[in-house]
Amino acid sequence: MKVEIIVIGDELLIGQVTDTNSGYIARKLNLVGVEVLRTTAIRDRAEEIITAVEESLLRVDTVIVTGGLGPTNDDITKKTLCEIFGGEMIFSKATQESNDALFARLGKEMNSLTRSQAMVPDCCKVLPNPVGTAPGMLFKRDGKQLISLPGVPYEMQKLIDDQVVHIFENIGNTEKIFHSTRVVTGFTESKLAIYLSEFESSLPSSIKLAYLPKPNIIRLRLTARGNNEESLYCDMYQATVRLDELLKDNIIAYDDLTLEEILIKLLQEKSYTISTAESCTGGGIASKITSVAGASTVFMGGVVAYDNTIKTNILGVEEESINVYGVVSTQVVEQMAKGVADKFMTDCTIATSGIAGPSGGSKQKPVGTIAIAVYCKGSVQSRLITIPSVNRMRNVERFIDLALYDIIKMLI
Amino acid sequence: MKVEIIVIGDELLIGQVTDTNSGYIARKLNLVGVEVLRTTAIRDRAEEIITAVEESLLRVDTVIVTGGLGPTNDDITKKTLCEIFGGEMIFSKATQESNDALFARLGKEMNSLTRSQAMVPDCCKVLPNPVGTAPGMLFKRDGKQLISLPGVPYEMQKLIDDQVVHIFENIGNTEKIFHSTRVVTGFTESKLAIYLSEFESSLPSSIKLAYLPKPNIIRLRLTARGNNEESLYCDMYQATVRLDELLKDNIIAYDDLTLEEILIKLLQEKSYTISTAESCTGGGIASKITSVAGASTVFMGGVVAYDNTIKTNILGVEEESINVYGVVSTQVVEQMAKGVADKFMTDCTIATSGIAGPSGGSKQKPVGTIAIAVYCKGSVQSRLITIPSVNRMRNVERFIDLALYDIIKMLI
Repeated sequence: MKVEIIVIGDELLIGQVTDTNSGYIARKLNLVGVEVLRTTAIRDRAEEIITAVEESLLRVDTVIVTGGLGPTNDDITKKTLCEIFGGEMIFSKATQESNDALFARLGKEMNSLTRSQAMVPDCCKVLPNPVGTAPGMLFKRDGKQLISLPGVPYEMQKLIDDQVVHIFENIGNTEKIFHSTRVVTGFTESKLAIYLSEFESSLPSSIKLAYLPKPNIIRLRLTARGNNEESLYCDMYQATVRLDELLKDNIIAYDDLTLEEILIKLLQEKSYTISTAESCTGGGIASKITSVAGASTVFMGGVVAYDNTIKTNILGVEEESINVYGVVSTQVVEQMAKGVADKFMTDCTIATSGIAGPSGGSKQKPVGTIAIAVYCKGSVQSRLITIPSVNRMRNVERFIDLALYDIIKMLI
Repeated sequence: MKVEIIVIGDELLIGQVTDTNSGYIARKLNLVGVEVLRTTAIRDRAEEIITAVEESLLRVDTVIVTGGLGPTNDDITKKTLCEIFGGEMIFSKATQESNDALFARLGKEMNSLTRSQAMVPDCCKVLPNPVGTAPGMLFKRDGKQLISLPGVPYEMQKLIDDQVVHIFENIGNTEKIFHSTRVVTGFTESKLAIYLSEFESSLPSSIKLAYLPKPNIIRLRLTARGNNEESLYCDMYQATVRLDELLKDNIIAYDDLTLEEILIKLLQEKSYTISTAESCTGGGIASKITSVAGASTVFMGGVVAYDNTIKTNILGVEEESINVYGVVSTQVVEQMAKGVADKFMTDCTIATSGIAGPSGGSKQKPVGTIAIAVYCKGSVQSRLITIPSVNRMRNVERFIDLALYDIIKMLI
C-alpha cells in the first residue's frame, strides 16, 4: 500500500518550524507495510491545499494531511477539506463533550474559539482526539481516502498510534517491507561502497542497499520489499548473513541504534557506570545519554564545567595546566576525565573542552578544535582534533558524536 | 520571486532522517525576498525525481533540489537531472582539482568512487563546493532554472550562503517580505486570538498574522508582503506599534527569540551569572543555554545529578528530604538549586527533578511529573506539575521549556 503525506503550515515554508510529523508517520506506517511515496509541505492557503490534495489523490489511494486545524484564523485546513469533499460544517456533540472533558481535566475554560473546534464537516468520519481540541477526520471519495490530523506532534502521534495504524492494518496490505540496519565504522562511504560493490550487485532485486554516513560511522540499510513474505524474509536473512561476514569487526551495532544507544548497551553488558565532564559540549553528551530510556542504570551524572573556575574548583584541574597547555588541550581534558571519575565514582568518564565558535579561535587552535578524553577503569585516552567549520551548532553536534565514538571504541 | 524545494532521499520517506535543509534554505531565501511555495520530499527513484521536477518547473520559475549527490549507487540525482535537461556526463577538471585539494587537506586518499564525483552534466553550470566532493549545479531551460545542491547540511549551507543567495539577489526581486515576531505569555492561543480579533481584521491586506503556540508562550508573527517597500514598511510599523500597545507586559521578547536566548539577554542586562542542577532534564537545560553564542558571559556551568548519590554528595541535598518527600519534590529541587548556587557561586540557578518516562511513575507522581526550582540572589521559587504524556523525549523537551520559562518569569 502506498500513501502520500501533506503537511500544512506557513511556518514550515519560511523555516520557522521543522516538520517532524511526516517522519513519525512514515516510521509507524512502515511497520504495517505502508510505503510513503512523497511528502509535500504547503502553506495555509485554500487554493494551494486544494491543488496539493487533488494531485496526491491522483497518485495514491490514501493521503494523510497534518496541520492547519487550530482555532485561529490562519488555520483553514478543516474548511478547505470540507469544500474538497463537498460537505457542510455541522456541530459534533461527541467532539464537544470530549473537548469539555479535556478542558475540565486541564482546569481551563472554553471560549468561543475553542468551542468552534466541535464544528466538523458532515462528509467525514470523526477520529476522536482525546488529548487536544482538533479531532482527526477521515474522508472518502471514489475508493480513495484522506485522513486529516492535527499538527501538534503529540496529538498527531496519539491519533496515529491509536487509530490510523489500525485503519491500515485492517486494509490488509499485500506488500511487505523489512529494513535491516548495521552501524559500521572504519570506512569512508566511498571505500565501503567499493568494498561492497560485488555484494551489492549480487543482491536480489527485492533488496536495496543504502548508505547513511555520519562522522566516523556509516549506517548501512538493507530494505526488502515484495509480496511473498517468506521468500522476502529468506532473501533478507541471506543478505544480512553475507553482509555481516564481509564487515565482521567493523560492525558496532546490529540494529539501527544511535551512538548513545550503542554506548548504553555496551556499559550495561559490562556493568560499568559512567559520568561526564563537559565544557564546550555544554551538557550535550549527558543530554544525549539520558535521552535513552534506561540510561539511569549506567549514567550517574556529570559536571558542565563551562567556566574555567568550575574546571579547577569542582573537577580539580590544575590552574597551571590551563596556563601552560591552554584550556583546550589533552592535558586539561585528561584531568577533567579523572576528576569527574573520582568525584562521581564511576568506571568510565568522558571529558570535552573545545571552541565551538563562531568566535574564540586562535591560529594554533581555530574554531572547531576540541580536546576529548575518555577514561575507563584507570586508563585514559585523549586526542585533539579540528573540524573545518565555524558553525556553532554543527560543531557541538560533531563534538558530541566524536566523544561518544571515542568511548565506544575504548569499550569495544 | 517564488520557488519550490525538492529534497531527495529514501531515508526521508521512511522517517530515518529529518529534513532540515528545506527550512534552512527557506530562511535564507526569505531574507532576499524569495518565497518558498512548496517543499516536496521524494525517494531516490529516477521516475519519481523526473515527475516531481517537471511538476515543480510548471508551477514556479526556480526549483532548488537537495540530496542524492553522493558517490554510491543509491544516489542518482545527478544522472537523472542530466537526463531531464538533456546532457551528457563529462569530466570537470576544476571539480577534480577542488576535490583533490579537499582530500589533501583532510589527509584522505581518493578512490574510484570519490574520483567519479568530478563527472558532471555538460548542460549545467557547476557551483563549486569547497567543503565536499559533490558540486552544486545550475541548470536552465525555457527561462526557468533548477539549482541542485548536496544533501549534507553543512555543504548545502555553504553553497546557499556563498553562491545561491547571490543568484537571487542579482535577479532583483520586485516583491519584498518582512517578518516581525513577538513572544507573548499569559494567553492561550484561542484567548489571544479572541483578544486580537479586532486588530487582526483591521490589518491591511498586505499583512498576515500567525500564531505559533508553545507551552506557556505564543510566538505571534506578522508577515508583510508586497511590491512597494516603503508603504509595506509603513504598514508593518503601524501594525507592530498597535500590537505592542495591545499586549504590553505580556510580551517577553520583541524578536523571534528562543526561551534560552531571552534568558541570556535578561541575565546579560542584569549582569547576573547562572548555573544549573539537573536530574530528569539530564543536561538539556545547560545544553540549550550553551547553544547560544555568548552564553559564556553568564553561564558558569552545572551539575547533572542523575543518580541520587550525586544529589546528596555533590549538591548537598539531605538524604532525609529524599526519603520523606521523594526525589521528585519541591523540597529536593529547592535544595538542589541552593546547593549549586553555593558550589558554583552564581547569582541564579535552575534545578529539576522529574519522571520523564516511559516508566517509573507512581499514582501520586505519574510519568510526566516534574519539580522545578528557580533561584535568584537568595530567593527561591518552586513548583510541581504533571504533563499528561508518557513520551520521554517530549516530556524532557517540555520540562526544559517550563524550567526556562520559570527563571525568565522570575527575572522579568
